[in-house]
Amino acid sequence: MSIFLKVVPVSEAIATVRRIAPAPAQETVPLESAAGRVLAADVHSDMDIPGFNRSVVDGYAVRAADTTGAGDAIPAILHQKGRVEMGPQPQSAILPGECIYVPTGGVLPSGADAVVMVENAEQAKDQVLIKKPASHGENVLLYNEDFSKLDRVLSRGRRLLAQDVGVLAAAGCATVRVFCKPVIGILSTGNELVPVTETPRAGRIRDSNSFMVGAFVQEHGCIPKYYGIVKDDRVVLRQALERAVGECDAVLISGGSSKDERDVSAALIAELGEVIIHGIAIAPGKPTIIGRAGKKPIIGLPGHPASAFIVLIAIVRHLLDRMTGDAAPQKKIAQAVLAKNVPSQKGREDYVRVKLADGVATPLFGKSGLLNTLVKSDGVITIPSEREGIENGERVEVWLW
Amino acid sequence: MSIFLKVVPVSEAIATVRRIAPAPAQETVPLESAAGRVLAADVHSDMDIPGFNRSVVDGYAVRAADTTGAGDAIPAILHQKGRVEMGPQPQSAILPGECIYVPTGGVLPSGADAVVMVENAEQAKDQVLIKKPASHGENVLLYNEDFSKLDRVLSRGRRLLAQDVGVLAAAGCATVRVFCKPVIGILSTGNELVPVTETPRAGRIRDSNSFMVGAFVQEHGCIPKYYGIVKDDRVVLRQALERAVGECDAVLISGGSSKDERDVSAALIAELGEVIIHGIAIAPGKPTIIGRAGKKPIIGLPGHPASAFIVLIAIVRHLLDRMTGDAAPQKKIAQAVLAKNVPSQKGREDYVRVKLADGVATPLFGKSGLLNTLVKSDGVITIPSEREGIENGERVEVWLW
Repeated sequence: MSIFLKVVPVSEAIATVRRIAPAPAQETVPLESAAGRVLAADVHSDMDIPGFNRSVVDGYAVRAADTTGAGDAIPAILHQKGRVEMGPQPQSAILPGECIYVPTGGVLPSGADAVVMVENAEQAKDQVLIKKPASHGENVLLYNEDFSKLDRVLSRGRRLLAQDVGVLAAAGCATVRVFCKPVIGILSTGNELVPVTETPRAGRIRDSNSFMVGAFVQEHGCIPKYYGIVKDDRVVLRQALERAVGECDAVLISGGSSKDERDVSAALIAELGEVIIHGIAIAPGKPTIIGRAGKKPIIGLPGHPASAFIVLIAIVRHLLDRMTGDAAPQKKIAQAVLAKNVPSQKGREDYVRVKLADGVATPLFGKSGLLNTLVKSDGVITIPSEREGIENGERVEVWLW
Repeated sequence: MSIFLKVVPVSEAIATVRRIAPAPAQETVPLESAAGRVLAADVHSDMDIPGFNRSVVDGYAVRAADTTGAGDAIPAILHQKGRVEMGPQPQSAILPGECIYVPTGGVLPSGADAVVMVENAEQAKDQVLIKKPASHGENVLLYNEDFSKLDRVLSRGRRLLAQDVGVLAAAGCATVRVFCKPVIGILSTGNELVPVTETPRAGRIRDSNSFMVGAFVQEHGCIPKYYGIVKDDRVVLRQALERAVGECDAVLISGGSSKDERDVSAALIAELGEVIIHGIAIAPGKPTIIGRAGKKPIIGLPGHPASAFIVLIAIVRHLLDRMTGDAAPQKKIAQAVLAKNVPSQKGREDYVRVKLADGVATPLFGKSGLLNTLVKSDGVITIPSEREGIENGERVEVWLW
């Protein structure tokens, strides 16, 4: 039978969600749609880049050896053979003592191995005075220097940045094989919940978790699928959960904030599959459930939005990163000095919101259930479970929003 | 007439793009689509949050005063009046000496001002032994404690994070007023360019800039509109540019990498409006054009992809941030120690790619035109124009990709 509130360390919860995360499917997208997607296969260049010796400046293509010792006082004097046009390959090679004008991006004629910038040369009829020596390869991208044909240019698991997309274009990828974005089912339960459009009477609150969780999964490269507010009734909840499990790659249920309600969620997850963890040594966020139905992970988030949010960043993030195939997910981290003592309870990992200014992290005290400190803070610090607090003046890592 | 390659400092280029950036339009979107969008108006809560004294634990609602001095040895003994159900407002108040069971999220009955966690209490028939004193407001979010009705919960210019979306839901925003995503026209020019689907013959290269620039504007909250490769012909280029200016909020032309081609681009921009800057003291990226046609900014990027990329992150980013209305655009910065001397030329701002590991930034030397170091690096350091380099062991800020 399932485990009810046997609290496990955060590390175990993370290892568990990583273990149960289903591998993502794959699809092919046009390069225009590849930004931010995760590569599902290594990409190799289909050609040598550049495919020719290419000038990176406007100047004179020379044999570097012809410029040795050249200076303002005693320039090297070369015969100018004309100019390279953009695009087509130049016809003739240059011989010792010759040079040819080449625009940025132009092809070096054979014989040339460097380019002297126009700023360092002076043209006099068909002669060019070279006033600065050039070394082999100077101001040139040599054939093959950037990538060789069949070089791996990017690896599976890479979340594509703008520069990566540029490189994919250079490597000949008009389409890209990427991991599909996982679809995450989102449902909120709790008889006290009302839709955002309603003004809650006393005892009721608006369902803010659905929207917060939906935005979070989008931020993490997933597609939210909303199932709305589900009545805290065993039959109705089971139907909704079964439907979400059938239609999505994973399900996040939030709410069931009281113990009785949490037990209903846990019992239903156990009926549909298994509850692996019920209770994490994290504050806020302790009453979290991790389970699955078949191969579909189901996470039961705390009902309180501020607690649910901490569980999202501390635990669920690892599930989503694994499900999106991202091999090196980025966290925004800033180093800072803590401005005040922060006490903590040993045996649990505490998440404390901070404001960050000029390298100083100031904890925002106040109840962990407040939403206003979530939006007023710049990030959180974590206090490891083996510590009883962090002291004023200690160096901390701030995990920025 | 326009200004040809009178090089200006990076700071002037940034100030210029910020000045000419057109203000964004506004639209209303459903809350489900608000993640990552930028608020176009301050948002105020339509109610007090919470709207009632709300327990954040499972426990016993008490009068804090009744628990003074309570402990394991001498517990406070209270009469249990029953339990609060979720949702509806409780009927009766508690009197001195009484308590009532309340689940997480439940309403405190009037008279109660704190909740004692079940872990710190013991029930014996209709009596509850309280073994730990509670202070006023303990384990409760008090009425109004998070937000008051009409409080500003988020400000205009805020790029919405997941927690912000949750707060908007709590504040009653089923829809949100946001800035429209600017549409950025992207065109590449240069007779040496071929489409990605082609294998370039010698002297030609694939148009990677269009895709890189498109991905970049998406990363920065804009919508790319692609005009493809435009022949480096005055008439054809003018037509394409006019069309892009008509259809988009700003235009990024890349290429025209040689001086002659750049002059054509600059002359055309001058014909359609004005060239404000032609040449920036930045390396790589010097031959950049900043101009506009009417109120539409036009940026001429260097043709070489690696140079274009640096101009995107150093200059164009500021244009796009302003055009999206983002009041506090985020840069990912890491502090590090430089592993090697990096020489630089005084009078220009140098961007040097680095690998970052364990707080040490190692410059990736190699020609600035290489793409492979753009994808192998973790970010860049900048060397200010007044310096001639940065030394091994100096502290630097790494601007992470």
